[in-house]
Amino acid sequence: MKRAVVLLSGGLDSAVTLAIAKRDGFEPHALSFDYGQRHRVELDAARRVAQAAGVRDHRVAQIDLRVFGGSALTDDIPVPLERSVAEIGHGHGIPVTYVPARNTIFLSYALAWSEVTGAAHIFLGVNSVDYSDYPDCRTEFLQAFEHLASVGTKSGVEGTRVRVHAPLLHLSKADIVLKGAELEVNFALTHSCYDPDVDGISCGKCDACQLRLKGFREAGLTDPIRYAA
Amino acid sequence: MKRAVVLLSGGLDSAVTLAIAKRDGFEPHALSFDYGQRHRVELDAARRVAQAAGVRDHRVAQIDLRVFGGSALTDDIPVPLERSVAEIGHGHGIPVTYVPARNTIFLSYALAWSEVTGAAHIFLGVNSVDYSDYPDCRTEFLQAFEHLASVGTKSGVEGTRVRVHAPLLHLSKADIVLKGAELEVNFALTHSCYDPDVDGISCGKCDACQLRLKGFREAGLTDPIRYAA
Repeated sequence: MKRAVVLLSGGLDSAVTLAIAKRDGFEPHALSFDYGQRHRVELDAARRVAQAAGVRDHRVAQIDLRVFGGSALTDDIPVPLERSVAEIGHGHGIPVTYVPARNTIFLSYALAWSEVTGAAHIFLGVNSVDYSDYPDCRTEFLQAFEHLASVGTKSGVEGTRVRVHAPLLHLSKADIVLKGAELEVNFALTHSCYDPDVDGISCGKCDACQLRLKGFREAGLTDPIRYAA
Repeated sequence: MKRAVVLLSGGLDSAVTLAIAKRDGFEPHALSFDYGQRHRVELDAARRVAQAAGVRDHRVAQIDLRVFGGSALTDDIPVPLERSVAEIGHGHGIPVTYVPARNTIFLSYALAWSEVTGAAHIFLGVNSVDYSDYPDCRTEFLQAFEHLASVGTKSGVEGTRVRVHAPLLHLSKADIVLKGAELEVNFALTHSCYDPDVDGISCGKCDACQLRLKGFREAGLTDPIRYAA
């Protein structure tokens, strides 16, 4: 079986990405990050999703993005709530929830692990439809990273061409939900909210919740997770 | 003043790189990593070097490379001692002290901080003469990273071209020592040894010590640090 490192946040997108990697015959090694995110309930979701998918090797790398600040997800900038969905993602500039160079850092770790394990494939659940204003969610960025991997690693120099797979890149959230349903992803295990309450219940109002709810609605399916009243 | 993020390990090379960044008119922001390195005395050296250079903002990012293993510098693989200098670096394959994707990870963090601070310049002390077999110490790698930075960050997309400076890339260790002497770097504050004793005294035998001692010898200067008898 071909090995792959799958970046697993615990969100809906990465759970579907993991299911796609399995469907395509890869043996997934799952990698999550404890980066001081406000919504740590995500990591619990990542563990549940990895377990449900039968992942045998799931690692959580401690990384410290707070050392630089600069994003609503790790810093003291308030998470924007109750923007209309129409404002999210398209042409309204890079949102405050953007974490500087985050996907570059995440992919670098995935690359390190792929070298150690001999995996020549990295999967990540980025999406350019809902997150068109995030520079590191675009084909051009992923291709640049593949090139970097080919010239900057021992395995690359020795001839292993690392492939970066982003199977959700051009899917709408509704398409992602439908794809997950087709692959029998248990959505109840996933977590998307940027601003859950102390019990981990999703707010239903932040960008991530709104996009998720809209995706389920457009897919004609019911989101099984709980939302605050 | 133009801001720059300078990767500062506490070794001789990064101390000279910092001095070059200052000479060239940059306001340096120094970035070190606590990555579970065996030789933690390096971090103390980094702090001393930053202070001596008058760096106003020096951050140490906690990162966890041990989560993957795979290198003599972070894992249980013995550090190779007493190889002849002739065996080091040239055409003998990638050494066991190579840390998978390390410079990719380090540069990713530097990129994150450069975005937050508005620095469009990153300095690092990599060297292709002594470390020709490290894939991530080559021009091709640095150029690939510059491209990645230009397509993968908010600042890059908004038009800031991040430059990666590696002023030591083509210098021999002797040239680096001479350059440092010219710029009045206090070599006594730096640390290079891969395998220091409990008091932080350098072994004089590992690759890093041998290269350093050879550099001072060829430069006709005396290394001011202490070595084990």
